[in-house]
Amino acid sequence: MRTLNVALGARAYPIHIGGGLLQQPELITRHLRTPRVAIVSNTVVAPLYLNSLVGGLEKVGVGMTPPIVVPDGEAHKTAATLDIIYGHLLAQRCDRSTTVIALGGGVIGDLAGFAAATYQRGVPFIQIPTTLLSQVDSSVGGKTGINHPLGKNMIGAFWQPQLVLADTDTLNTLPDRELSAGLAEVIKYGLIRDLPFLEWLEANLDRLLARDTEALTWAIERSCANKAEVVADDELETAKEGGRALLNLGHTFGHAIETGVGYGEWLHGEAVAAGMVMAAELSRRLGWLSGADFERTVALLERAGLPVESPALGVDRYLDLMSHDKKVIAGRLRLVLLKGLGEAVTFSDAPSGDVRGAIEACCVT
Amino acid sequence: MRTLNVALGARAYPIHIGGGLLQQPELITRHLRTPRVAIVSNTVVAPLYLNSLVGGLEKVGVGMTPPIVVPDGEAHKTAATLDIIYGHLLAQRCDRSTTVIALGGGVIGDLAGFAAATYQRGVPFIQIPTTLLSQVDSSVGGKTGINHPLGKNMIGAFWQPQLVLADTDTLNTLPDRELSAGLAEVIKYGLIRDLPFLEWLEANLDRLLARDTEALTWAIERSCANKAEVVADDELETAKEGGRALLNLGHTFGHAIETGVGYGEWLHGEAVAAGMVMAAELSRRLGWLSGADFERTVALLERAGLPVESPALGVDRYLDLMSHDKKVIAGRLRLVLLKGLGEAVTFSDAPSGDVRGAIEACCVT
Repeated sequence: MRTLNVALGARAYPIHIGGGLLQQPELITRHLRTPRVAIVSNTVVAPLYLNSLVGGLEKVGVGMTPPIVVPDGEAHKTAATLDIIYGHLLAQRCDRSTTVIALGGGVIGDLAGFAAATYQRGVPFIQIPTTLLSQVDSSVGGKTGINHPLGKNMIGAFWQPQLVLADTDTLNTLPDRELSAGLAEVIKYGLIRDLPFLEWLEANLDRLLARDTEALTWAIERSCANKAEVVADDELETAKEGGRALLNLGHTFGHAIETGVGYGEWLHGEAVAAGMVMAAELSRRLGWLSGADFERTVALLERAGLPVESPALGVDRYLDLMSHDKKVIAGRLRLVLLKGLGEAVTFSDAPSGDVRGAIEACCVT
Repeated sequence: MRTLNVALGARAYPIHIGGGLLQQPELITRHLRTPRVAIVSNTVVAPLYLNSLVGGLEKVGVGMTPPIVVPDGEAHKTAATLDIIYGHLLAQRCDRSTTVIALGGGVIGDLAGFAAATYQRGVPFIQIPTTLLSQVDSSVGGKTGINHPLGKNMIGAFWQPQLVLADTDTLNTLPDRELSAGLAEVIKYGLIRDLPFLEWLEANLDRLLARDTEALTWAIERSCANKAEVVADDELETAKEGGRALLNLGHTFGHAIETGVGYGEWLHGEAVAAGMVMAAELSRRLGWLSGADFERTVALLERAGLPVESPALGVDRYLDLMSHDKKVIAGRLRLVLLKGLGEAVTFSDAPSGDVRGAIEACCVT
């Protein structure tokens, strides 16, 4: 087992990464500050891993509410599902001495985390991510929230967990498509700030696709370490330049894709992959990224089984959807672009013609 | 104008108290960190004070969305009303460079504050409370939230404002019943930690009921100062004994009344008044409060036009409703009681017979 520490002062917490962690309830109880927990999971993950978690916690005497099992998928990251969680916590008379545990992918983490952030103005929270995407991205950094019909992740809170437990064994049951979606965020860390890691990914992508445990553990650890460093420097995303915003490479384009085609049609990681291609194309047009480096980016994403062409929503529709993004500052579209491989920047002055051209060039014809 | 400072480190903020403050937009712009604001008000307050606020801000060049005017009353402190605010902010493409301004009573402050806490994971917030209750209580301390059908204030967040502007002129249009409801919280500060203030209230209650500006200003200032001191010591309500919980004198009983009769039937301050009588009666039964001091408490609340008898919901129903309260710790009912006038404590060991007896004794027969 490897352990990373996310350095956030009074809100610091550890990330444990490795195999068989679900079978070690003492990893949880060591960080549990309440006598009782409420586990939130979904209909896909619960049949696979809930018994193991519940059995372990029972053995060490942790009090539990009946598990809260909600429908699976991004389409359910809504106020309605959140209310199911609230209703359950209230019916079970949970108070501030209950810790919410998220067992599932990014959607469950975001939902359960936001429930923890807002139930009785905040209760403790533990993340047990069971997808590659959530292990390398959404379980680190304290972002929680739900979608709104008018925009993705528009409602939420920063709420740090007590602990993240990334059990790599849970990836054995992950569908190929979701493994690829997770790799999109892994590749992102290489692109934005870690060229050696990007090169390692180019050399080891086949091992990752074959779910080699050692390779996966290394990829998760490097990803979390990169994210933890960025988050520790800019916890609340208040940096005016760079900072936490850099983690959003491809996300402003990607959110437009997700909203444009309807939540749940594209996986988040898929939309981010296609969005990163748009960001790379725009960077190329600005003269920041060479044609060869652009092709290298596209090739790695393609090898990872990810889409590199975006749906033809029309340029105006893209720009309209992107203007709703949280990364918009005072009405100006601030994008994350690449000054080169391994070096991302935030940029608000991209000429409109280049932005339009890059979007157009990356859409399916 | 009087100014109090709420000492919360990086989240410190001033409270301005006095007449004619709505006509001084520079008080707002001095603390405004964004180019744009979104004002949230209700159908009762908006016709009275919205034009004045909007006109002032226009004059000094502050950008504004169209005002968000929601229905009035505790019955609307719901997820549905919150969604009206979210929808408006999204339709107006508000980003993190928008400050939410609450113009109204406690319900508007709680709703708008929770919207600010959770819109795009948090935007700045300014409170302009227009009722006595919200000026002395709910605008100070950062508690925001909404009700859930299963319990009052069950969903929420701690979110500190940039500024609180308590314009005493707005109290001139306040109905008598709401003035009295505000006085319940004013009297509460005297009861829990400020005997000299309690004595001042006994001597000056008639001036307050006659809306004497000078007396009101003093009562608001003393109330906010008391609350600010308590909040600064225990921002997130984590103290195991005493601390912020003391501000809840009468509230656990009071919330049971509000839920039991249906939200909106009793004003919050009315329920707190009747709840404080229950707490005083229980304190008397525990031998902590003399019969004379109990009578003194009841007499002051009665003079303020407040109910001192509770609705006959039945003791079991009271206990059931109270067990849902956030002040419950690990299943134990923790009450705020009086060791004497001006000295409140938290107490989890009240014998069940005394609790039942006190409830029964205070209900309408």
